[in-house]
Amino acid sequence: MSDQENEKKTDKSSQQSMWGGRFGAGPSAVMQEINASIGFDKRLYGEDIAGSMAHADMLASTGIITAEDRDAIHAGLEQVRAEIEAGAFTYDPALEDIHMHIESRLREIVGDAGARLHTARSRNDQVATDFRLWCRGAIERFDELYAAFISTLLDVADTHADTIMPGFTHLQTAQPVTLGHHIMAYVEMAMRDRARLMDCRGRLNESPLGAAALAGTGFAIDRHQTAEALGFDAPMNNSLDAVSSRDFALELLATLSIAATHLSRLADEIVLWATPAFGFLTLSDSFSTGSSIMPQKRNPDAAELIRAKVGRISGAMNGLMMVMKGLPLAYSKDMQEDKEPVFKAVDDFELCLVAMTGMMADFRPNPAAMRAAAGQGFSTATDLADWLVRELKMPFRDAHHVTGAIVKLAEGENCDLADLTLDQMQSIEPKITSAIFDVLSVEASVASRTSFGGTAPENVRAQISAARKKLDDLEKLSVTES
Amino acid sequence: MSDQENEKKTDKSSQQSMWGGRFGAGPSAVMQEINASIGFDKRLYGEDIAGSMAHADMLASTGIITAEDRDAIHAGLEQVRAEIEAGAFTYDPALEDIHMHIESRLREIVGDAGARLHTARSRNDQVATDFRLWCRGAIERFDELYAAFISTLLDVADTHADTIMPGFTHLQTAQPVTLGHHIMAYVEMAMRDRARLMDCRGRLNESPLGAAALAGTGFAIDRHQTAEALGFDAPMNNSLDAVSSRDFALELLATLSIAATHLSRLADEIVLWATPAFGFLTLSDSFSTGSSIMPQKRNPDAAELIRAKVGRISGAMNGLMMVMKGLPLAYSKDMQEDKEPVFKAVDDFELCLVAMTGMMADFRPNPAAMRAAAGQGFSTATDLADWLVRELKMPFRDAHHVTGAIVKLAEGENCDLADLTLDQMQSIEPKITSAIFDVLSVEASVASRTSFGGTAPENVRAQISAARKKLDDLEKLSVTES
Amino acid sequence: MSDQENEKKTDKSSQQSMWGGRFGAGPSAVMQEINASIGFDKRLYGEDIAGSMAHADMLASTGIITAEDRDAIHAGLEQVRAEIEAGAFTYDPALEDIHMHIESRLREIVGDAGARLHTARSRNDQVATDFRLWCRGAIERFDELYAAFISTLLDVADTHADTIMPGFTHLQTAQPVTLGHHIMAYVEMAMRDRARLMDCRGRLNESPLGAAALAGTGFAIDRHQTAEALGFDAPMNNSLDAVSSRDFALELLATLSIAATHLSRLADEIVLWATPAFGFLTLSDSFSTGSSIMPQKRNPDAAELIRAKVGRISGAMNGLMMVMKGLPLAYSKDMQEDKEPVFKAVDDFELCLVAMTGMMADFRPNPAAMRAAAGQGFSTATDLADWLVRELKMPFRDAHHVTGAIVKLAEGENCDLADLTLDQMQSIEPKITSAIFDVLSVEASVASRTSFGGTAPENVRAQISAARKKLDDLEKLSVTES
Amino acid sequence: MSDQENEKKTDKSSQQSMWGGRFGAGPSAVMQEINASIGFDKRLYGEDIAGSMAHADMLASTGIITAEDRDAIHAGLEQVRAEIEAGAFTYDPALEDIHMHIESRLREIVGDAGARLHTARSRNDQVATDFRLWCRGAIERFDELYAAFISTLLDVADTHADTIMPGFTHLQTAQPVTLGHHIMAYVEMAMRDRARLMDCRGRLNESPLGAAALAGTGFAIDRHQTAEALGFDAPMNNSLDAVSSRDFALELLATLSIAATHLSRLADEIVLWATPAFGFLTLSDSFSTGSSIMPQKRNPDAAELIRAKVGRISGAMNGLMMVMKGLPLAYSKDMQEDKEPVFKAVDDFELCLVAMTGMMADFRPNPAAMRAAAGQGFSTATDLADWLVRELKMPFRDAHHVTGAIVKLAEGENCDLADLTLDQMQSIEPKITSAIFDVLSVEASVASRTSFGGTAPENVRAQISAARKKLDDLEKLSVTES
Repeated sequence: MSDQENEKKTDKSSQQSMWGGRFGAGPSAVMQEINASIGFDKRLYGEDIAGSMAHADMLASTGIITAEDRDAIHAGLEQVRAEIEAGAFTYDPALEDIHMHIESRLREIVGDAGARLHTARSRNDQVATDFRLWCRGAIERFDELYAAFISTLLDVADTHADTIMPGFTHLQTAQPVTLGHHIMAYVEMAMRDRARLMDCRGRLNESPLGAAALAGTGFAIDRHQTAEALGFDAPMNNSLDAVSSRDFALELLATLSIAATHLSRLADEIVLWATPAFGFLTLSDSFSTGSSIMPQKRNPDAAELIRAKVGRISGAMNGLMMVMKGLPLAYSKDMQEDKEPVFKAVDDFELCLVAMTGMMADFRPNPAAMRAAAGQGFSTATDLADWLVRELKMPFRDAHHVTGAIVKLAEGENCDLADLTLDQMQSIEPKITSAIFDVLSVEASVASRTSFGGTAPENVRAQISAARKKLDDLEKLSVTES
Repeated sequence: MSDQENEKKTDKSSQQSMWGGRFGAGPSAVMQEINASIGFDKRLYGEDIAGSMAHADMLASTGIITAEDRDAIHAGLEQVRAEIEAGAFTYDPALEDIHMHIESRLREIVGDAGARLHTARSRNDQVATDFRLWCRGAIERFDELYAAFISTLLDVADTHADTIMPGFTHLQTAQPVTLGHHIMAYVEMAMRDRARLMDCRGRLNESPLGAAALAGTGFAIDRHQTAEALGFDAPMNNSLDAVSSRDFALELLATLSIAATHLSRLADEIVLWATPAFGFLTLSDSFSTGSSIMPQKRNPDAAELIRAKVGRISGAMNGLMMVMKGLPLAYSKDMQEDKEPVFKAVDDFELCLVAMTGMMADFRPNPAAMRAAAGQGFSTATDLADWLVRELKMPFRDAHHVTGAIVKLAEGENCDLADLTLDQMQSIEPKITSAIFDVLSVEASVASRTSFGGTAPENVRAQISAARKKLDDLEKLSVTES
Repeated sequence: MSDQENEKKTDKSSQQSMWGGRFGAGPSAVMQEINASIGFDKRLYGEDIAGSMAHADMLASTGIITAEDRDAIHAGLEQVRAEIEAGAFTYDPALEDIHMHIESRLREIVGDAGARLHTARSRNDQVATDFRLWCRGAIERFDELYAAFISTLLDVADTHADTIMPGFTHLQTAQPVTLGHHIMAYVEMAMRDRARLMDCRGRLNESPLGAAALAGTGFAIDRHQTAEALGFDAPMNNSLDAVSSRDFALELLATLSIAATHLSRLADEIVLWATPAFGFLTLSDSFSTGSSIMPQKRNPDAAELIRAKVGRISGAMNGLMMVMKGLPLAYSKDMQEDKEPVFKAVDDFELCLVAMTGMMADFRPNPAAMRAAAGQGFSTATDLADWLVRELKMPFRDAHHVTGAIVKLAEGENCDLADLTLDQMQSIEPKITSAIFDVLSVEASVASRTSFGGTAPENVRAQISAARKKLDDLEKLSVTES
Repeated sequence: MSDQENEKKTDKSSQQSMWGGRFGAGPSAVMQEINASIGFDKRLYGEDIAGSMAHADMLASTGIITAEDRDAIHAGLEQVRAEIEAGAFTYDPALEDIHMHIESRLREIVGDAGARLHTARSRNDQVATDFRLWCRGAIERFDELYAAFISTLLDVADTHADTIMPGFTHLQTAQPVTLGHHIMAYVEMAMRDRARLMDCRGRLNESPLGAAALAGTGFAIDRHQTAEALGFDAPMNNSLDAVSSRDFALELLATLSIAATHLSRLADEIVLWATPAFGFLTLSDSFSTGSSIMPQKRNPDAAELIRAKVGRISGAMNGLMMVMKGLPLAYSKDMQEDKEPVFKAVDDFELCLVAMTGMMADFRPNPAAMRAAAGQGFSTATDLADWLVRELKMPFRDAHHVTGAIVKLAEGENCDLADLTLDQMQSIEPKITSAIFDVLSVEASVASRTSFGGTAPENVRAQISAARKKLDDLEKLSVTES
């Protein structure tokens, strides 16, 4: 991609490169290879055609081209689209990018009208427009996928609002929680990730079209018309900014990177829970690979790949950030390196989100193993200490001292806290009453944590309801808007 | 930082580490060194005290502690704050972090009341609360600094709305623009950067306090009260998410990284414009270093450092992203590595933003050098081609062909386009009239680009007015809110 | 890729996936999509066939398979290779990767002999072997390309050993240097980059083959034989390490990233020097793009792309580092994410190195513009100060003070240092003699800097000779070794 | 840091900044803050003094300064060193960096002799020299620490050469291995990491001193003498390269990043093995934190922090790479951003290496738990299949089919493979004999894997011996060299 005055002859029949006639020597093969972007930017064909149609409409309605030219352009572009989608389109690295390909073919089909399409436009604003449209489309797909993902998580959380599992800190058993509560933590993360994507969408949804090469144009164009036609909220305010900025791509990559860390955490838990020592879940056939000689074995390949993909996505962000570092305005060819990382990160993220949704839809926990692990490690010691504070008005420090002594006693007896007798406990703190046994089971512990956002099943159900409502509200909003 | 049941004896007089009595051997020196965060997290003391006060108020109003305890805690915390701010506070790596330091000192001052402060709270929710408060404070400072930066840029743009300079693509002269227009591109970027920060603020402004170690608590606390007291919009919905998530820190780092790429681009242009070959500007004494033997020399040190800092800020983001990758819930000690990169990136960014604002306030362009460069390289060739299209209804391709021939003629004559005679031009295209000379000067070129967002001075002034209004509206909004 | 016991039925005719028969449900489409690596790892076909042939030879020579089986395997693999290279090979995502594709086709061709090839081998050691071979091949290509690149730089340096240009600090004119000297700085960097690649080659050139899935094997294989057959220096010492480590890939990516920063610096200088304000060089037609309406214009697209690629390459390294972070031994599917970033980075770097060599071979500096710029900014002020120190035995500080005053005088007179009269200079420091004029020209300055490694033309020529000798020695070494 | 002609008056008593007198306005506070590096580069004081002493010696031996000046400089520098080490040295941000601080104080102490020290030197070559010396020192410390770390790992491996544990793929039990074998995988990684550091050391150990600002000098200095005095292998060949290159710092950071991924993997395994579900090891008191109310609990804080630090180290590399991207030669102020990331990464890595060595010295595995887990999941199924191939000459595919059927039978019987009767096995494959039972135990499986690098205890012991010998050889080499 390049600037407006970079318009080139595209007479393919003469087998010359676009600017070949002007140069003493043709561009070398390596130049063509490093320069051509058609290998990846052909994905923008739909956006490019949409942008060109909107531009032609505007040129006609402002009297810059005739209605006949506009109609010819529309028909020609529809033919180009059909050829591309039918696999009947010829790509030629000498034509560099998808924009030149489409324009060149359009000229072949409709002649001079096609040549007039590029009035008051440059490849610089054209490529920025196409790329923003493409990113917006990706975000809109993600928005739908997030609705499905969150909905699936909510179903799992609902089913397991009472399923007790260990809550870990440092991967050590700390306190019992419910599986529903655990899953709801990911719902919260996913909702923020989705909101970040929507913020990104809002910010990128402005139209560069009409900025031309960098300075705007002297033709009396109507940038508001093309912006509206393409679903942009407004034309961008500054033509230099319009062709030079790629913060929209960086924001998308950063947003996906952050979201991918969340998927990687859930994926890591799936790998962990599926290991025999945990045995917290059985992997679905659909998202694991097996072994012909160990039929019981299921390898969590999909979860491992999701865990890994955050590296690739974040590497893409990082790479583009380095590309943009210290680039003077306006357009530099460096910026052609924006598309591949975004395409790759979007593809990777989409695959991860779909695969994770599939895995959660097939989620098969083993409540017995979870319940057993939740009871290990004196996980209700905090409840015991809290009881001492609450019921005996013991200061925190003393309560911890007493609890530590009781745990040590149970450890010596090789039994759980709930298995100690009242006498044994009173040998350490005489004021303890039999009411203590009400808080020593993991069930009691979980049920007691009714503070807002806490793990008590009733709370978890309330969280689920609130989240469902929020999801529905977003859905309605989305329906209303479209 | 660690989980709730990780409460420790803090009897410093006994010279034991916090959990030393329970272990056969004391923690080794290297463990203390790798584990302690007091070296950096002492910056959180203000947030920690504010959080503890809000927590104590809530414990008292819900009847969990007495009003006397609450008052003692408040008085004690004020004393701790005074000691810290007076440099009279003793730090001890054995106490690990700022939270333990303040709590330990509070207990020394107020005794058991201090011990009761930690009821229904854990270091896990405490540190998450403090860190969110700190990040929010940083964003609010940035918001003010951005207002000043944008305002400064607007003043420069206003002064130079008519100052002509070359617009570059590929660092080759492409078309003339105005300096005001060029500066306004950075205003647009800065406004998006500021908006991104505000989106980040909105998302992180929820309270983790009361999530306790990870599962919530059985005490009848009021999380809405503490959230409101600390200026949070709401308590977080899920206790596991509250202590386990660091996407707010990642979003802040990503936002600063993106903003820093914009500063690095402007900084690179300052370095470039200050090089003798360009001579577009004279560096202010305040933001350059000199040489005792070359008194005319000014090295753009500040600009170079701003250009470089994006590397550090983006490295900080990248590092934290790698830390968070694949971490199972809930709290893992890995997450202690969140603060240093954020502190460093915030400090670096703040310095860059202030320094860049200072540099722009002292901005001394050399309009004559800019004007001369704008005329080089046949920068109005596009205007000539556009004239042929517009006035002679020539198709774009033909117009380019004619323009190329005329440029070649001027090149051969070693003169500018405007210096050719009408005869010379008509020798190439007989239909050209003397009206062509109206578009060949850089002044005419710039004046003609009146499309929305274009570089015509009247447009640039309109952009400036609109931006000033937006800035004022944000200011009013901010005043209304506070 | 997966472990040894992960062997699967590959009956393509039954249209079942490899492990489908064992599972209640077939793997979903998304699982197949996320899991399959055939889209990128088909590039390893040559390495895979070479590895299989070496393995078959060893199995036969140790008596594990018969000579007949070995011969059948060889013939079958040659046929597979021919099919792949003729484009007659059928790829099927259900077969996941290139290893399964080749093995499956081999079985179709040679039957049971093909099935016996996989004795005492696993996909885990197989993929590690293939990938190391591929990386080694890339390094060997780079080694040759570096020889050509360095040789080209040396030619440029030789031609311009006397060509004077400004030496910059902070992009401000500091002291005159020669273009040959400047180019030789890049020769030094390139030589270190090449050496780093060779170190990487040495470290990765050990054979994982025979490590099997992770634990080694009970078959009496000879790993030294396969290592030698494949050109490895030795078999790897530890089977777990052999299948689990990817530091060889990280080292390659890090090495390419560092090398790419050097190319990016040279590329940035090309962009800078080609800008009209500098005018230090004219871009070759072969490595720039032009404009139909501004025939004199040449955009440095290739240089800009080379400058940008370091972002992509470094992003690839960064991404893989994040993938490997915290992965437990032995093989995890995450590690499948190693190949794409390496392939992409190797391709990008290769293109950059070839394009940069081409650009330097076509390098067309403008010595007059360089010479003029070298004289700007009182660039010999240091020489004047050094003269005062050397000839008048003035302390450094005083010499700087005097020099500053003389520069200020010349600045006021709007002339160069060499244009001042002796009287004028003596008005500031009476001891100055006319010998001072011997050091005030840029030619004298450059000629005087004869310290080892300095910019004096004679020194530069000595550096070039030494570098040519080193290059030749490496060449001879390489010929001897092969 | 800046270039040679950037020498400044440093009359602190006049309270002027170094170049203040020449400027209309003093540098603003923010400029001083962004510009000063003394806050971090004071760590270079030892290297700076060593470099200055070597330079003074050379200046004297080449007759550029007198022996008296040299002696005064030495004495003065010793006094500066003593003041710094006694904490009696005054730092002043106006003096920017450690180099100016030391030089300024030296001039106060010894007068003009101090001023003559800077003859034929610049801050540019001075800072490059100091920083290379510092990095070399860090690598030499790491080399010793690696010797200790590897030696500790070898001791653990030796003790546990027979200790059976599960070998995992995808964190699923795959085949039994020995703990000694597993530890030896990390020995291999550590040996490569150490070798990479030594390669880095070799490459950076060339002297920039005498390159002056960028062009060399006209003084008849002897760069070979200073290089030798400072332990460098040679002076750098090109003065521009000497002051402009930072690939040595990038290589060090990349090397540490790769090494840190290995430590992070071992750290992750420690966290995993310490979780109750695994119970493979008990954390040493010295490297874990406890809980007052759960005395049995040990949190693997040190391991978690080591796992996390790779993010920070790799972020440092990444940040510096972005800083260096596209920087034109020679010195730019951006390069001042090289030191902090290197200092931080070196400190972090050193702490990780020491802490991990401590953890491994205190390593307390639980062989019973490991042995039990190794037997789970039919981990000897591969041995069974290999037996069928080896003894019954069954093709691989058939052997896998039979093995799968037998595993399914055992799964149905809820017993291990070794617990099936011969009759049961023969019901699936009649040719199986009782010899099969020799390969079905995990002990037999491990013992059988005698291929080079395999997990058989005898092999592991051979690997340990070979590694010990290699370690000793490196030690002897190191003693001989020093």
